[in-house]
Amino acid sequence: MTSRREAILQASATAIAERGVRGLRVSDVAEVAGVSPGLLYYHFKDRDGLLAAALTYINDRARAYRTASDHSESARERLISQMLGEIQENPEVREISLAWNELRACAVYEPALRDPLARTARRWNQEIADTIRLAQAVGEVADEIDPDEAGLIATALTEGLSSRWLCGELETDTAREHLRKGLEKLLPQPAARSRPARRTAARG
Amino acid sequence: MTSRREAILQASATAIAERGVRGLRVSDVAEVAGVSPGLLYYHFKDRDGLLAAALTYINDRARAYRTASDHSESARERLISQMLGEIQENPEVREISLAWNELRACAVYEPALRDPLARTARRWNQEIADTIRLAQAVGEVADEIDPDEAGLIATALTEGLSSRWLCGELETDTAREHLRKGLEKLLPQPAARSRPARRTAARG
Repeated sequence: MTSRREAILQASATAIAERGVRGLRVSDVAEVAGVSPGLLYYHFKDRDGLLAAALTYINDRARAYRTASDHSESARERLISQMLGEIQENPEVREISLAWNELRACAVYEPALRDPLARTARRWNQEIADTIRLAQAVGEVADEIDPDEAGLIATALTEGLSSRWLCGELETDTAREHLRKGLEKLLPQPAARSRPARRTAARG
Repeated sequence: MTSRREAILQASATAIAERGVRGLRVSDVAEVAGVSPGLLYYHFKDRDGLLAAALTYINDRARAYRTASDHSESARERLISQMLGEIQENPEVREISLAWNELRACAVYEPALRDPLARTARRWNQEIADTIRLAQAVGEVADEIDPDEAGLIATALTEGLSSRWLCGELETDTAREHLRKGLEKLLPQPAARSRPARRTAARG
């Protein structure tokens, strides 16, 4: 049962990424997922229920690949790697990012999408804010940074750069480089540590 | 003739803001603008030509309201005001922002939109980069900031926050406050000046 539910959500994410929310037909999603429309309605009630569940699914998938590559010993570097994980040369990352970008744009026109989208975005902001708090606790991000505020700004910058990347306006490397530069400014190291830390990095 | 061209572009921006690019019909735009479809095709060749011209029109309108309220004596404050001008409680700003947000999202699915969008965004980036250079020339933004890089990051952050504002996820004041905080970090004052300048502001 769980795997059918997941197959439906995966098919929804692919359909949204490929053709957009406005072209999304519940019957097509059911067909791609290999389930009956009845089972889809049983799980998600209606199209809005499916879209809300797809948003949570997309954020869960993004969290998985965000945190997959953050092996650095530095908490601040892990934080930056997590954000950079949203922009990668990788078909899964591109598909999930396309679906998120499209859901965000459509929420303007589909009020039923707004609450689930706001909830999902808030969860993402909070995850990043918590990671900032962790980096502050070990003295790698300046204490004067407000984690909730910086979390919201960092995720909004990520969305803005991701959107330009998905349009082909920025190459993957250029988008990632600008994201890193922006995050380094938004999440400064504590004043006393910043110089020695940089010197060490340059030596290594 | 010029005013008819402008009426067509205004009608296009409104139609895109209200119903999205995918719902845009050239014949509806012609009707709202009070012109014949033939005249519209005479000016813009086809739907893609109309969308490309609408992008330039939207950036020109945005530039006008961006620079309308930057009366500060400080070049850095004028720069920040220009960026904040993109998020305002104002029907015109909301309409133009909605249209831009929608064109950006649709460029993913409509390849013909990508080049005109990239050109328009590049023009916006460059205008902001030039304003940063100006603020650097009078010693109000730190010299180590790369104006082109910072211009791209600042406009991407503006788009990211604007998108959340248009979805109703952020109130106008909250979106503006986060944009200001982000820009202050991305465009720091020169080190020697930053403390005295802040103290003066606190006293006034």
